[in-house]
Amino acid sequence: MAKQFYLDNSATTMPCKRTIDNINNSLNNNWGNPSSLHIMGVNAEMELNDARRVIANSINANIDEIFFTSGGTESNNIAIFGAVNSRKKRGNRIVTTTIEHPSVLETIKSLENQGFEVVYLRPDKNGVINETDIYNAVNDKTILVSIMLVNNEIGSIQPIKTVADAIKKSGAPALLHCDAVQAYGKLDINVSSLGIDLLSASGHKIHASKGVGFLYKKKTVHIANTVFGGGQEKGLRSGTECVPLISGLKGAVEELGNIRNNFLTINELRNYAIEKLLKTELVTINSNDNCLPYILNISVVGYRSETLLHYLESKNIFVSSGSACSKGHGSYVLKEIGLDARRTDSALRISFSRFSTKDDIDALCDGLYEACSKLRKA
Amino acid sequence: MAKQFYLDNSATTMPCKRTIDNINNSLNNNWGNPSSLHIMGVNAEMELNDARRVIANSINANIDEIFFTSGGTESNNIAIFGAVNSRKKRGNRIVTTTIEHPSVLETIKSLENQGFEVVYLRPDKNGVINETDIYNAVNDKTILVSIMLVNNEIGSIQPIKTVADAIKKSGAPALLHCDAVQAYGKLDINVSSLGIDLLSASGHKIHASKGVGFLYKKKTVHIANTVFGGGQEKGLRSGTECVPLISGLKGAVEELGNIRNNFLTINELRNYAIEKLLKTELVTINSNDNCLPYILNISVVGYRSETLLHYLESKNIFVSSGSACSKGHGSYVLKEIGLDARRTDSALRISFSRFSTKDDIDALCDGLYEACSKLRKA
Repeated sequence: MAKQFYLDNSATTMPCKRTIDNINNSLNNNWGNPSSLHIMGVNAEMELNDARRVIANSINANIDEIFFTSGGTESNNIAIFGAVNSRKKRGNRIVTTTIEHPSVLETIKSLENQGFEVVYLRPDKNGVINETDIYNAVNDKTILVSIMLVNNEIGSIQPIKTVADAIKKSGAPALLHCDAVQAYGKLDINVSSLGIDLLSASGHKIHASKGVGFLYKKKTVHIANTVFGGGQEKGLRSGTECVPLISGLKGAVEELGNIRNNFLTINELRNYAIEKLLKTELVTINSNDNCLPYILNISVVGYRSETLLHYLESKNIFVSSGSACSKGHGSYVLKEIGLDARRTDSALRISFSRFSTKDDIDALCDGLYEACSKLRKA
Repeated sequence: MAKQFYLDNSATTMPCKRTIDNINNSLNNNWGNPSSLHIMGVNAEMELNDARRVIANSINANIDEIFFTSGGTESNNIAIFGAVNSRKKRGNRIVTTTIEHPSVLETIKSLENQGFEVVYLRPDKNGVINETDIYNAVNDKTILVSIMLVNNEIGSIQPIKTVADAIKKSGAPALLHCDAVQAYGKLDINVSSLGIDLLSASGHKIHASKGVGFLYKKKTVHIANTVFGGGQEKGLRSGTECVPLISGLKGAVEELGNIRNNFLTINELRNYAIEKLLKTELVTINSNDNCLPYILNISVVGYRSETLLHYLESKNIFVSSGSACSKGHGSYVLKEIGLDARRTDSALRISFSRFSTKDDIDALCDGLYEACSKLRKA
């Protein structure tokens, strides 16, 4: 197989060794139902709790604050519907942003259709929500604020601590939900010092498998149950827990290593990429300096994103036009940060993982250079 | 490791070879995001559709009628909430039974709490819902009938075709949902001839992994979306599809072999078990002759289920007291078929798979005999 240059790690990542090893160990040697009363059930449950401990430690949470789900989307659905249903007698306002992932945005839109008042905060040109806007939006009828930690298309980092402060100051009965799908495992997250009540994360963005994620729920916070059944995960997410993938997620988290060191390494790689991309004189950078270095959004003005993407894939270079979930529709995130059609229509998302190398970036730059010399301008 | 005698296959099953092979192949060689536009996404999507085709064939459905979920519970939640939300303007009545799995029963109870009228049909002493009762329950305000195909504790088979006929006759706007978690892969299911609109199934009951299942939705039927996000699975179940486990599920279905032959083999095994268990003169059989042979519910009157279960596990024999999801609470199913406390408190569920052997049954009988000679009567 020809060498692949995979720079689409915000869409999904290659499962790492410990992920695969743990999944296999579970499938072969620990496949009991964690709800079974006999030792095969107990062993499966112990593995769940071991994973819970590892994940709790990774965000400074307690073991009984981690609830396993099938991924980021389910975590976001459970958190948002659960929070709103538990507090709807205390207020009617939901605050979010215009640049959330669809699993937050569409969930909240469905609540808006039910009659909830939704305030959509808009980002500045750097993709960051203004702190004053946050203070202004949160009033004493606000029951939920849902803001992502890192934007999935440009990597901008939102001021979550400020949101927590705004909720506190307003006296609102609001819960703070944070979609951390693109942040978890890449930024050092301390749910306690950030003041987060509910946090969603996904396995397959950090070299675990697709199909697994978790929801952090602060111990003192109650949310309504929205998934009904056997009462697994303390009733918050019924359904037999997916022990193999949860065990795999534990492995992926353990294999992450030092998140701050990884951050610095990726930051160097990103700077290398920016320098080299700018040298081609073809590229404009859409992610500003304060963005998470794992995500670098660029535009190659004059060339359509999809055309570039397919040219690059012919060279085994994989990037994304917008997010994977948007499946080629124009990026609402780039529009929201004020980019014109020339920039949004030619945008590419380059996203790194700890397995990314300068070779990948060199291949990308060569590929883009070649693409622009061969393709007709749009 | 000592030989294990696993007779708890209705709780969960051992992942089979093709399941494990397919999962590994996906994790190692086909880990793209199926929503990605490049070839890695396309390859992942092709694997999804290949699995969809295999599963559709297995129940005489079309490929575009299969929707992947995280398991039976999620399938049941999506089907029931989706059906009711899409039809609530046309009626207020839901018909179900008292012996459904909690993922149906609790979901419907939550709708009852919202104001829907729910008719709970009760089974006869064989665990079967009476056909006249079905006709009487379904009126022209009925929007959903949810009845399981096979009961998870005793294996009784419900007259689904009659339900479809009753809906048709009544002129009700009702959808027919069938929880087939314990039936799929064990009974020959033809959704078309049974008249089923929505059918739920789970992977880990048929030697696939936990964490994957599917929902069949008849093409001409619309149900409301209740999971919000990137619009995967045609909007019915957003969230990146779990390609590895879906591929594993495909393998498990392919490895099932001939369902009718398996049925006959398991039936022989069950008859062997009944004969041998009755010979111990300790056991009463709770599952009647018309039950699915994969499930055999017994009582060992005078001995508590949990005590027996733990004695047996000390001999590496694994059975269940009630369902895994009930975690040791008294069985509402056995109460509903009219068993007294002596029978319900001493019940064990023996459940077979195609990997079960006469050795397992011999070990069980020896174990029970030994248990009853050593344990004090309750």
